[in-house]
Amino acid sequence: MTVKLVVLYTHPDDAGAFDEHYAGTHRPLVDKIPGLQRTETGKVGAAIDGGEKTYYRITELYFADNAALQAGFGSEEGTATAADYQKIAPAGSRMFVVPVDD
Amino acid sequence: MTVKLVVLYTHPDDAGAFDEHYAGTHRPLVDKIPGLQRTETGKVGAAIDGGEKTYYRITELYFADNAALQAGFGSEEGTATAADYQKIAPAGSRMFVVPVDD
Repeated sequence: MTVKLVVLYTHPDDAGAFDEHYAGTHRPLVDKIPGLQRTETGKVGAAIDGGEKTYYRITELYFADNAALQAGFGSEEGTATAADYQKIAPAGSRMFVVPVDD
Repeated sequence: MTVKLVVLYTHPDDAGAFDEHYAGTHRPLVDKIPGLQRTETGKVGAAIDGGEKTYYRITELYFADNAALQAGFGSEEGTATAADYQKIAPAGSRMFVVPVDD
Protein backbone atom coordinates (compact mmCIF):
# COMPACT_ATOMS: atom_id res chain seq x y z
CA MET A 1 0.00 0.00 0.00
CA THR A 2 1.43 3.32 -1.10
CA VAL A 3 2.23 5.61 1.81
CA LYS A 4 2.88 9.31 1.50
CA LEU A 5 4.33 11.96 3.73
CA VAL A 6 2.15 15.06 3.46
CA VAL A 7 3.91 18.30 4.39
CA LEU A 8 1.85 21.45 4.94
CA TYR A 9 4.14 24.49 5.00
CA THR A 10 2.74 27.63 6.60
CA HIS A 11 3.59 31.06 5.23
CA PRO A 12 7.24 32.03 5.47
CA ASP A 13 8.19 35.53 6.62
CA ASP A 14 10.31 35.89 3.50
CA ALA A 15 8.68 34.02 0.63
CA GLY A 16 11.57 34.70 -1.74
CA ALA A 17 14.14 33.25 0.65
CA PHE A 18 11.89 30.25 1.33
CA ASP A 19 11.37 29.57 -2.37
CA GLU A 20 15.10 29.77 -3.03
CA HIS A 21 15.94 27.46 -0.11
CA TYR A 22 13.17 25.05 -1.09
CA ALA A 23 14.17 24.76 -4.74
CA GLY A 24 17.92 25.08 -4.35
CA THR A 25 18.65 23.16 -1.16
CA HIS A 26 15.67 21.29 0.25
CA ARG A 27 14.29 19.68 -2.88
CA PRO A 28 17.69 18.26 -3.93
CA LEU A 29 17.99 16.68 -0.45
CA VAL A 30 14.50 15.20 -0.74
CA ASP A 31 15.31 13.76 -4.15
CA LYS A 32 18.17 11.73 -2.64
CA ILE A 33 16.04 9.90 -0.06
CA PRO A 34 16.32 6.17 -0.75
CA GLY A 35 13.02 4.55 -1.69
CA LEU A 36 11.33 7.82 -2.64
CA GLN A 37 9.10 7.01 -5.61
CA ARG A 38 7.68 10.40 -6.45
CA THR A 39 7.30 13.93 -5.16
CA GLU A 40 4.31 16.16 -5.78
CA THR A 41 4.38 19.77 -4.68
CA GLY A 42 2.63 23.03 -5.32
CA LYS A 43 1.98 26.43 -3.81
CA VAL A 44 -1.48 26.86 -2.38
CA GLY A 45 -3.46 29.05 -4.74
CA ALA A 46 -6.52 29.74 -2.63
CA ALA A 47 -8.60 28.59 0.31
CA ILE A 48 -12.03 28.01 -1.18
CA ASP A 49 -13.83 27.39 2.08
CA GLY A 50 -13.90 31.03 3.10
CA GLY A 51 -11.19 30.43 5.69
CA GLU A 52 -7.60 31.60 5.94
CA LYS A 53 -5.00 30.54 3.40
CA THR A 54 -3.24 28.78 6.26
CA TYR A 55 -0.65 26.99 4.15
CA TYR A 56 1.86 28.29 1.64
CA ARG A 57 3.00 25.08 -0.01
CA ILE A 58 1.86 21.45 0.15
CA THR A 59 4.35 18.70 -0.67
CA GLU A 60 3.82 14.95 -0.79
CA LEU A 61 6.54 12.29 -0.83
CA TYR A 62 5.46 8.84 -2.03
CA PHE A 63 6.90 5.52 -0.88
CA ALA A 64 5.96 1.92 -1.69
CA ASP A 65 4.86 1.26 1.86
CA ASN A 66 5.37 2.37 5.45
CA ALA A 67 8.55 0.31 5.83
CA ALA A 68 10.08 2.08 2.83
CA LEU A 69 9.12 5.47 4.24
CA GLN A 70 10.64 4.64 7.63
CA ALA A 71 13.79 3.28 5.99
CA GLY A 72 14.06 6.36 3.81
CA PHE A 73 13.91 8.74 6.75
CA GLY A 74 16.18 6.51 8.79
CA SER A 75 18.89 6.81 6.16
CA GLU A 76 21.68 9.37 6.11
CA GLU A 77 19.93 11.22 3.27
CA GLY A 78 16.63 11.16 5.14
CA THR A 79 18.27 12.50 8.28
CA ALA A 80 19.86 15.33 6.28
CA THR A 81 16.45 16.15 4.76
CA ALA A 82 14.77 16.19 8.17
CA ALA A 83 17.50 18.49 9.53
CA ASP A 84 17.00 20.87 6.62
CA TYR A 85 13.22 20.75 7.15
CA GLN A 86 13.80 22.16 10.62
CA LYS A 87 15.57 25.10 8.99
CA ILE A 88 13.09 25.78 6.24
CA ALA A 89 9.66 25.00 7.72
CA PRO A 90 7.88 28.05 9.14
CA ALA A 91 6.31 27.69 12.60
CA GLY A 92 3.04 25.78 12.50
CA SER A 93 4.01 23.69 9.47
CA ARG A 94 2.66 20.15 9.71
CA MET A 95 3.71 16.69 8.63
CA PHE A 96 1.44 13.65 8.38
CA VAL A 97 1.86 10.07 7.21
CA VAL A 98 -1.06 8.99 5.02
CA PRO A 99 -1.55 5.48 3.63
CA VAL A 100 -3.25 5.97 0.27
CA ASP A 101 -6.52 4.05 -0.29
CA ASP A 102 -6.57 1.71 -3.27
CA MET B 1 -0.99 22.81 -15.42
CA THR B 2 -2.66 20.19 -13.26
CA VAL B 3 -4.70 21.71 -10.45
CA LYS B 4 -5.93 19.80 -7.45
CA LEU B 5 -8.46 20.46 -4.74
CA VAL B 6 -6.96 19.39 -1.42
CA VAL B 7 -9.51 18.57 1.28
CA LEU B 8 -8.36 18.19 4.88
CA TYR B 9 -11.12 16.56 6.94
CA THR B 10 -10.89 17.00 10.69
CA HIS B 11 -11.94 14.21 13.05
CA PRO B 12 -15.64 13.33 12.94
CA ASP B 13 -17.55 12.75 16.17
CA ASP B 14 -18.68 9.40 14.81
CA ALA B 15 -15.95 7.91 12.64
CA GLY B 16 -18.09 4.95 11.59
CA ALA B 17 -20.91 7.17 10.36
CA PHE B 18 -18.41 9.44 8.57
CA ASP B 19 -16.73 6.50 6.85
CA GLU B 20 -20.07 5.11 5.71
CA HIS B 21 -21.26 8.49 4.39
CA TYR B 22 -17.89 9.13 2.73
CA ALA B 23 -17.70 5.78 0.93
CA GLY B 24 -21.38 5.27 0.25
CA THR B 25 -22.63 8.76 -0.59
CA HIS B 26 -19.88 11.36 -0.91
CA ARG B 27 -17.37 9.48 -3.01
CA PRO B 28 -19.96 8.43 -5.63
CA LEU B 29 -20.96 12.14 -5.95
CA VAL B 30 -17.29 13.17 -6.34
CA ASP B 31 -16.78 10.53 -9.01
CA LYS B 32 -19.50 12.14 -11.16
CA ILE B 33 -17.92 15.62 -11.30
CA PRO B 34 -17.25 16.45 -14.95
CA GLY B 35 -13.57 16.91 -15.75
CA LEU B 36 -12.34 15.07 -12.66
CA GLN B 37 -9.23 13.18 -13.73
CA ARG B 38 -8.32 11.33 -10.57
CA THR B 39 -9.03 11.13 -6.86
CA GLU B 40 -6.48 10.27 -4.21
CA THR B 41 -7.56 9.78 -0.62
CA GLY B 42 -6.39 8.21 2.58
CA LYS B 43 -6.90 8.32 6.32
CA VAL B 44 -4.16 10.10 8.22
CA GLY B 45 -2.03 7.50 9.94
CA ALA B 46 0.06 9.70 12.18
CA ALA B 47 1.37 13.21 12.76
CA ILE B 48 5.12 12.76 12.73
CA ASP B 49 5.99 16.27 13.84
CA GLY B 50 5.02 15.70 17.45
CA GLY B 51 1.87 17.76 16.99
CA GLU B 52 -1.80 16.83 17.05
CA LYS B 53 -3.29 14.47 14.48
CA THR B 54 -5.43 17.41 13.36
CA TYR B 55 -6.88 15.74 10.29
CA TYR B 56 -8.75 12.47 9.87
CA ARG B 57 -8.70 12.07 6.10
CA ILE B 58 -6.97 13.90 3.24
CA THR B 59 -8.52 13.80 -0.23
CA GLU B 60 -7.25 15.32 -3.45
CA LEU B 61 -9.26 15.81 -6.64
CA TYR B 62 -7.24 16.35 -9.82
CA PHE B 63 -8.26 18.43 -12.82
CA ALA B 64 -6.45 19.34 -16.03
CA ASP B 65 -6.31 23.01 -15.09
CA ASN B 66 -8.07 25.67 -13.04
CA ALA B 67 -10.75 26.21 -15.69
CA ALA B 68 -11.65 22.51 -15.57
CA LEU B 69 -11.84 22.60 -11.77
CA GLN B 70 -14.09 25.66 -11.82
CA ALA B 71 -16.29 24.12 -14.52
CA GLY B 72 -16.49 20.87 -12.56
CA PHE B 73 -17.68 22.57 -9.40
CA GLY B 74 -19.97 24.87 -11.37
CA SER B 75 -21.79 21.85 -12.79
CA GLU B 76 -24.89 20.22 -11.34
CA GLU B 77 -22.79 17.29 -10.14
CA GLY B 78 -20.23 19.64 -8.57
CA THR B 79 -22.95 21.58 -6.79
CA ALA B 80 -24.40 18.33 -5.42
CA THR B 81 -20.95 17.31 -4.20
CA ALA B 82 -20.37 20.68 -2.51
CA ALA B 83 -23.77 20.43 -0.80
CA ASP B 84 -22.92 16.95 0.48
CA TYR B 85 -19.51 18.22 1.66
CA GLN B 86 -21.34 20.65 3.93
CA LYS B 87 -23.11 17.65 5.48
CA ILE B 88 -20.10 15.40 5.88
CA ALA B 89 -17.18 17.71 6.71
CA PRO B 90 -16.54 18.10 10.44
CA ALA B 91 -16.01 21.64 11.74
CA GLY B 92 -12.54 22.96 10.98
CA SER B 93 -12.16 20.90 7.78
CA ARG B 94 -10.27 22.82 5.09
CA MET B 95 -10.26 23.04 1.33
CA PHE B 96 -7.46 24.50 -0.80
CA VAL B 97 -6.81 24.81 -4.52
CA VAL B 98 -3.22 23.86 -5.37
CA PRO B 99 -1.67 24.14 -8.84
CA VAL B 100 0.81 21.27 -9.05
CA ASP B 101 4.40 22.18 -9.98
CA ASP B 102 5.79 20.45 -13.06
